[in-house]
Amino acid sequence: MKNIAVMGFGTVGSGVVEIIEGTSFKEKVGQDISVKAILDVREFPDSPYSSLITNDFNKIIEDDDIDIVVETIGGINPAYEFTVRSLKAGKSVVTSNKELVAAKGAQIMQIARENNASYLFEASVGGGIPIIRPLNNCLAANEIYEIMGILNGTTNYILTQMIKNGQSFESALSDAQKKGYAERDPSADIEGFDTCRKIAILSALSYGKQIDSDKIPTQGITKVALKDIEYADKAGYVIKLIGKSKKVNGKVYAKVCPLMLSKNHPLSGVEDVFNAILVKASATGEVMFYGKGAGKMPTASAVVADCLDIIKHNGFGAPHWQEGGELTCCNPDKVKYYIRLNITDNHRAEKCVIAVFDKVSWIDTDSRDAAFITFAAKEDEIQECIDKLGSLIGKENIVSKIQVEID
Amino acid sequence: MKNIAVMGFGTVGSGVVEIIEGTSFKEKVGQDISVKAILDVREFPDSPYSSLITNDFNKIIEDDDIDIVVETIGGINPAYEFTVRSLKAGKSVVTSNKELVAAKGAQIMQIARENNASYLFEASVGGGIPIIRPLNNCLAANEIYEIMGILNGTTNYILTQMIKNGQSFESALSDAQKKGYAERDPSADIEGFDTCRKIAILSALSYGKQIDSDKIPTQGITKVALKDIEYADKAGYVIKLIGKSKKVNGKVYAKVCPLMLSKNHPLSGVEDVFNAILVKASATGEVMFYGKGAGKMPTASAVVADCLDIIKHNGFGAPHWQEGGELTCCNPDKVKYYIRLNITDNHRAEKCVIAVFDKVSWIDTDSRDAAFITFAAKEDEIQECIDKLGSLIGKENIVSKIQVEID
Repeated sequence: MKNIAVMGFGTVGSGVVEIIEGTSFKEKVGQDISVKAILDVREFPDSPYSSLITNDFNKIIEDDDIDIVVETIGGINPAYEFTVRSLKAGKSVVTSNKELVAAKGAQIMQIARENNASYLFEASVGGGIPIIRPLNNCLAANEIYEIMGILNGTTNYILTQMIKNGQSFESALSDAQKKGYAERDPSADIEGFDTCRKIAILSALSYGKQIDSDKIPTQGITKVALKDIEYADKAGYVIKLIGKSKKVNGKVYAKVCPLMLSKNHPLSGVEDVFNAILVKASATGEVMFYGKGAGKMPTASAVVADCLDIIKHNGFGAPHWQEGGELTCCNPDKVKYYIRLNITDNHRAEKCVIAVFDKVSWIDTDSRDAAFITFAAKEDEIQECIDKLGSLIGKENIVSKIQVEID
Repeated sequence: MKNIAVMGFGTVGSGVVEIIEGTSFKEKVGQDISVKAILDVREFPDSPYSSLITNDFNKIIEDDDIDIVVETIGGINPAYEFTVRSLKAGKSVVTSNKELVAAKGAQIMQIARENNASYLFEASVGGGIPIIRPLNNCLAANEIYEIMGILNGTTNYILTQMIKNGQSFESALSDAQKKGYAERDPSADIEGFDTCRKIAILSALSYGKQIDSDKIPTQGITKVALKDIEYADKAGYVIKLIGKSKKVNGKVYAKVCPLMLSKNHPLSGVEDVFNAILVKASATGEVMFYGKGAGKMPTASAVVADCLDIIKHNGFGAPHWQEGGELTCCNPDKVKYYIRLNITDNHRAEKCVIAVFDKVSWIDTDSRDAAFITFAAKEDEIQECIDKLGSLIGKENIVSKIQVEID
C-alpha cells in the first residue's frame, strides 16, 4: 500500500486525485495506491475529497505512511520549502512546477539523492508529452546538442488564430482567455517567461548543468503584428514563439523569441494549443515530440506516471544535473532577419536598405510598408547593419525585426 | 566494469560497437563498459575489432564476465535460441530484432523475468525515436486506446518521391535501393510486413497482450499508382502507408494499408525516411513521436541506451506483456473509400456509381478516369456497395480502392 499526499488542490492537483482515486486505476496499474492527504489553504466542502484536505503541512511531513508528495502548488514559495522538507523526511516528490525546477532543480535533486528519495518532474515541460524521461533515458547514448520547441500552448493558440483567421493579437488573446487557455494575467505566457523556464529545464537536463533562466534573453509575442504574420506567409514562413538552446564549447546559447520558420520546418505545422519539442542528437539525428502541452488531465497523468515510476522502480534513474551551467550570449550560427519598415518614401527606403545590406529579399507588401529578409550573417554583423539603417531612415521607422530560422 | 557481447556484426551491431568503444563514451556515461566479444559467422580481418570476433556462441554463454548480450542478428533463428539461452544464463538481452519481438515477445519476457534478467527492445520500433519506453513508463497513468504510425522509412521515402516529384513507384524504389534505404529484396518493406511487425509490437505493449502479427491484415504500397497520388492531392489528401491499431472491447483491431490522410492530419507532413507514431491516450490525448526510423547510428544508439538502462537501473521497469491477445477483424469506426474506375463510358459509370452509392464526392480527373470518395459508413456496408458497383461495371474496372482516414 502506497500513500500519496497532494499539495495544492488546483487544476493539476485535483486531476491527480481524480486519476488515482478513479475507478479501475489501481487494478490497471496493479498497485494499491491512495491519496491520504491534500494540502490547501482553501476549503472544498463540496469535494468528495473534502475529508482529506488539511492546511497543515506538518500533518504530511509527520505521517510516516505517506511515501510520495505531489507538489502542484506552483511558484517558488512555499513550494520550495515544502519540497525540501519532504525530501529530507525521506519522501519522494513529484512536481509539475516548472518555475521551481528551473530555479532550484540542481539543488533539490542533490537533496533528494542525499536522502535516498527521488525528485521527478515529467509534467513540468510539455504537460502530457513524454519528454523528460525520453531525454534522460532513451537518448542516453547520444550527445544532445540542440533543442528547439514550441513550449507554450497559450501563445501558440494566439499565433495560430492570427495566422489562420487574421485575428489581431488582442482579440486572439481575449479569445484564449475566454476558452480558459490564458490566465487573467497572461504575462507569463505572452512575455515568454513560461517558455523560458521550460527551455532552461530541457537545457539543464540535456547538457547536464543548471542554467539561470533569468539570464536567457526572452522576448514574447506582444510585438508580433498581424502584418508581420501576413508578410511572413507571403515569403513562405510562419511565426512561432520558440525556445531554443544549443551547446557551444561547454557553454549554452539559449533564447526565447518569435522566430520565422519556413513552412517545411517540422515545427511550423504545430498549431493551436499543441506543443512540440525538436531535439538534435549526435547519433539519433532529429527527434520530435508532439502533443498537448498543458491541460488538467494530460499534466495530471504525467504526474501520476512519475508516482508510478517511484512506486514500481524506486525512482531509479531519476534525472539529475549539476549546478553551474554557463550561458553564452554569442549565437554560434549565422542568422537572417525579417525587417519591416514604416515608410513614406518608398524609393528612398529602398536606396537606404541597399546601401546598408547590399542585397536582400523583398517581400511583396502594401505601398505604405517595406519588408525584406536579410542575407545570412553572424548576429552582431546583422545587428550593426540594422543600426546603420536606423540611423539613415530613423530608428522608429524600423517597426518589426524578427529572426528567420535557417534550416 | 560491465562487459557486452554483440551478436551479429552487421549495420546495427557494428554501430553499437562503434558507440561503446568510441572516444569519450565511457566518460560521458560515467560507466566502464566494454565490448568483450562479437559473434558473427563472417570474419572481419580489417576491422579494428577483429580480435573480438568469434563464431562460437558458447564462448559468450560460458563467459561469466559478460553481463549483457546485444542481439542484432535479426530474424527468428538462431536469434531466438541465442536470446533464450543468454537469458537462462542470467544475462540480459537488448535487441533491435522486431521480427523476434513481434513473434515471441511475451514468451521471451517471461523467461527474462524468471531469470532475473531484462529483455529490452527500444530499437525494434522507430529506430532512434524513443517510443517503447515512453509508452511503457510515461503514459503509465493512461489508457492507450489507439496507435497509428508511419513505421517504415523505405516506403515513406518511395511515397514521398511519388508525391513530391511525380516519380513512378518502380523508379522511386530503384532510387531508394541506390541510396541504401531499400534492400535488394524490398518485399518486407513494400509489402508492409515490416510495418506489420512494428504495429504488432506497439499494440502488445500498449494493450498488454501478445498479438499474432501474421493475422493482421497487411497490404503494402505496390498497388499505389501515381494517378491515385495525384487525385488524392486534388482532393486534399496524401497517401501514406499506415500501421494502425485500436482497442475494441478487450480485443484489438489492427491493420496495415495505404491510407489517404487529409493534409491537416499530423502524420501527413511526415516525409522521406522519417517515421512518426501517433498515440491516443485517455488522459494525455494525442501524442506524437517523430524522427528517423532507421539507419545505423540512430538504431545503434537506441540499443546502447537500453544497455545503459540495464547497467544503471538494473532494467527495472522493463516492458512486458502477456500471451493471448485477440484480434478482431471488425473495424469499429466508420470509413470512407477513395475509388478509381477505368472507364470508357463516363456517363454510364456515373449512373452506376450514383445508383449504388447515392451520393459521392467526385474528384476532378482525366476524361478516361473517374475517381470519387464515398460517404462514411461501416466497412462491410461500403464493401457491399463496392461489390455491387463491380457487378454493374465489371470488377476489373475498379482499379484502385484506398481507405480514407476520417479525422
